Amino acid sequence: MELELLYEGKAKKVYQSDTNENHLILSYKNDATAFNGEKKAQFTGKGRLNNEISSLLFKALEEKGIQSHFIKRLDSVTQMVQKTDIIPLEVVIRNIATGSITKRLGIQEKTPFEPALTELFYKDDSLGDPLINDEHALFLTDITEEELNSIKQKARQVNLALTDIFAAIGVRLVDFKLEFGRNKEGEILLSDEISPDTCRLWDMETNEKLDKDVFRQGTGDLITVYEEILNRLEDQL
Amino acid sequence: MELELLYEGKAKKVYQSDTNENHLILSYKNDATAFNGEKKAQFTGKGRLNNEISSLLFKALEEKGIQSHFIKRLDSVTQMVQKTDIIPLEVVIRNIATGSITKRLGIQEKTPFEPALTELFYKDDSLGDPLINDEHALFLTDITEEELNSIKQKARQVNLALTDIFAAIGVRLVDFKLEFGRNKEGEILLSDEISPDTCRLWDMETNEKLDKDVFRQGTGDLITVYEEILNRLEDQL
Ligand SMILES: Nc1ncnc2c1ncn2[C@@H]1O[C@H](COP(=O)(O)OP(=O)(O)O)[C@@H](O)[C@H]1O
Ligand SMILES: Nc1ncnc2c1ncn2[C@@H]1O[C@H](COP(=O)(O)OP(=O)(O)O)[C@@H](O)[C@H]1O
Ligand SMILES: [Mg+2]
Ligand SMILES: [Mg+2]
Repeated sequence: MELELLYEGKAKKVYQSDTNENHLILSYKNDATAFNGEKKAQFTGKGRLNNEISSLLFKALEEKGIQSHFIKRLDSVTQMVQKTDIIPLEVVIRNIATGSITKRLGIQEKTPFEPALTELFYKDDSLGDPLINDEHALFLTDITEEELNSIKQKARQVNLALTDIFAAIGVRLVDFKLEFGRNKEGEILLSDEISPDTCRLWDMETNEKLDKDVFRQGTGDLITVYEEILNRLEDQL
Repeated sequence: MELELLYEGKAKKVYQSDTNENHLILSYKNDATAFNGEKKAQFTGKGRLNNEISSLLFKALEEKGIQSHFIKRLDSVTQMVQKTDIIPLEVVIRNIATGSITKRLGIQEKTPFEPALTELFYKDDSLGDPLINDEHALFLTDITEEELNSIKQKARQVNLALTDIFAAIGVRLVDFKLEFGRNKEGEILLSDEISPDTCRLWDMETNEKLDKDVFRQGTGDLITVYEEILNRLEDQL
């Protein structure tokens, strides 16, 4: 039985569910990409690890009262989600300065942001996902000002919840990226994935990087550190 | 009688007034720079034109109830202003899409922005004056959220006033950059300059560019078009 492939992204394939037209099947791929697709590789097991981690995190968020598109894990590499119209924004929350922001704004590595910083990027690969401000977001998308504020508010709630979830497994949530979409009812719902591809995660004791930066920077084995995150989450959750 | 040179920028020299420690003398230079200082040239008469234009515009704004650092024109190339601590933000208002924003966000040339778009750039030559959002501005400067909102509000008021002033001389105000500073009393005051160096100005009939873009793009004579702006303003104001 073949599902209809709606879209293939850099990290996931998106299939139409054949039992409910408002559901999608996300199939996590083994591909890793960085620097806007310039650096690429395949890692056997990555799709499984991100699917399992993302499923656990969406479930843990739901238990803390934060809804998302997640419906259920189907098998080791796939999950069922509510279909949404993705709003072309990457909503980034930063608790600690690292990566692009340090170069962009001359902020020293590891500077803490208190309160956490929120950034919006326009999700458009051909433009290199540029940083935008709120007025750009309102011009470029169909969301209202109230919706934009509620998206940022939700992202801050996710930050508080995820910070706790990761702290419980000895991991510091440094920063992360979220996507939101609009479901059939017109509600804006947390969508996409939450995984070491989309979060920066540092071991609280050793400061070891347990996320995609090991691939970006070539400083460690991606599968080993993603497996470490999954193991700790499975022990805790 | 020598005044103390406090600072020399790309377009102006800043002298300490010798009669009032809260006053500065701005001396407009003949230098033109573009692309973050990469393109440079000298134009005899440019300093005079920008000093005269800026003086007329600050006076016209004051008549419309918009205060600034401007005190008075001293001679053809200098003006006296209130000394402020410049907040390292470039506040840009765009009425029509042109220049960097069209490439950055894939917006078609000449797309109107209704309402006008406000952008903040972090004034730091070594970083290339990067675009920032409100949260970055609060992190990078010492202004409060209320002050940031009042700065943006003032910039929008300047936009309405300048749009009218230029419309009266047959010129469309496409976009412009403002700087604000804090005076000795702690008040935030419109500072710096308003000139064809810092505004995009298009003739309403012919769409001819009457601003620094003729130098950036090498499409016309800077002095001729700045002189045209000054002549029309002198006839009107
Ligand atoms: N609930 C959802 N409904 C519809 N599309 C979704 C949903 N969640 C995520 N997507 C989209 O699925 C696509 C595939 O994901 P991914 O491979 O990560 O893409 P990308 O290359 O854009 O990062 C992305 O466009 C993502 O925004
Ligand atoms: N009222 C003021 N008080 C103090 N500094 C000012 C005032 N108005 C403008 N300035 C500053 O004067 C400097 C010289 O101006 P300019 O040559 O345009 O510099 P830049 O190379 O930064 O564009 C700039 O740093 C500008 O911010
Ligand atoms: Mg993705
Ligand atoms: Mg200047």
